Amino acid sequence: MTITITCFEKSPDGGKGLARDTRVRWALEEVGQPYEVRGVPFPSLKEPAHLARHPFGQIPVFEEDGLTLFESGAIIFHLAERYGSLLPDDPDARMRALMWMFAALSSVEPPILDLSNARFAEGQQPWAEQRMPVVLERIRQRLDQLAAHMGDSEWLEGEFTVGDLMMISVLQRLKPSGILAGHPTLAAYVERGHARPAYQRAYAAQAAYNNP
Amino acid sequence: MTITITCFEKSPDGGKGLARDTRVRWALEEVGQPYEVRGVPFPSLKEPAHLARHPFGQIPVFEEDGLTLFESGAIIFHLAERYGSLLPDDPDARMRALMWMFAALSSVEPPILDLSNARFAEGQQPWAEQRMPVVLERIRQRLDQLAAHMGDSEWLEGEFTVGDLMMISVLQRLKPSGILAGHPTLAAYVERGHARPAYQRAYAAQAAYNNP
Repeated sequence: MTITITCFEKSPDGGKGLARDTRVRWALEEVGQPYEVRGVPFPSLKEPAHLARHPFGQIPVFEEDGLTLFESGAIIFHLAERYGSLLPDDPDARMRALMWMFAALSSVEPPILDLSNARFAEGQQPWAEQRMPVVLERIRQRLDQLAAHMGDSEWLEGEFTVGDLMMISVLQRLKPSGILAGHPTLAAYVERGHARPAYQRAYAAQAAYNNP
Repeated sequence: MTITITCFEKSPDGGKGLARDTRVRWALEEVGQPYEVRGVPFPSLKEPAHLARHPFGQIPVFEEDGLTLFESGAIIFHLAERYGSLLPDDPDARMRALMWMFAALSSVEPPILDLSNARFAEGQQPWAEQRMPVVLERIRQRLDQLAAHMGDSEWLEGEFTVGDLMMISVLQRLKPSGILAGHPTLAAYVERGHARPAYQRAYAAQAAYNNP
């Protein structure tokens, strides 16, 4: 029973934990499962061998005993279910943990990814500077709403779950921009997640992989 | 045991099935559960009573026996698990169905929602016209990848699952734009979904609600 994850051969962030394999490594460390890593060079992401595993030509891909999954939300939910960790026993609380994964990936991450698009993919376009306030305002609105909901709570729903793992992984993408510092309770929430030994092992593993 | 869903009191699309309650109504029809509807007027979306149910001030919200969920992905997965439908029995196939829900919501829907932003929220901005090709190209790329993966398959993974329900719900948002017509196999896939009696009942219910 071997688990293999596919990640960038060289992550664009140079191993700062921002690529999406970090969240899967974190979950693997939380559930205590070893794994192997397959690195894919950038040009190979759009080639048939990789597209057969991931139709959108991205990372991570997860493989275990004939099961191939892409989408980090599904991979992490699978790990939590299979290894009996990161999900509450109570059925309603379990669904709310899954709900927070969807919230992180489809309500909070899109405006954050749009900032990457605005800075990099569209960074040299004539509208880049003028449009930036619109992009930042969308992020600020989401962060305000999330902060208002969480207040000073330690985690989203009492205990640490897959929902926190994903929300923290999404929020940490804002760290290089300095935006998170404007929301101190969310910055503290990210720090609480990053203080977990499992996260620290995952971070160290991706940093070592990218800086051999 | 009463199910209540919260939706727009008046949907901006006037009942053309594009608001996110339609996908939840569809799932409820597929699993054969009756439900009640609470309509929220636009100004109330950002008021405390609604924010207590949905921290991002959106719709739909789902309530059943003390469980309150937002995020359509989680609501639909809950319905599928609780009422034993729309998910394969095989554990690996079940995870791949969940994977396609995440793919629909976090890989396919964001560029499609960006088109709405570009047309409406940013429609009067000085960069609107010049930026439009970038927005459309991101959608085209995702549709090309999805079409290449699906080929002529009837559904994403053999039988109809929550993954198809969500992917079709996301793709149908493109219908008014005419973009889907450029991808005939995906347009046919959406039509197959819409031919299901459960979808037709859901569509009729939201249309009647918005046109009393």
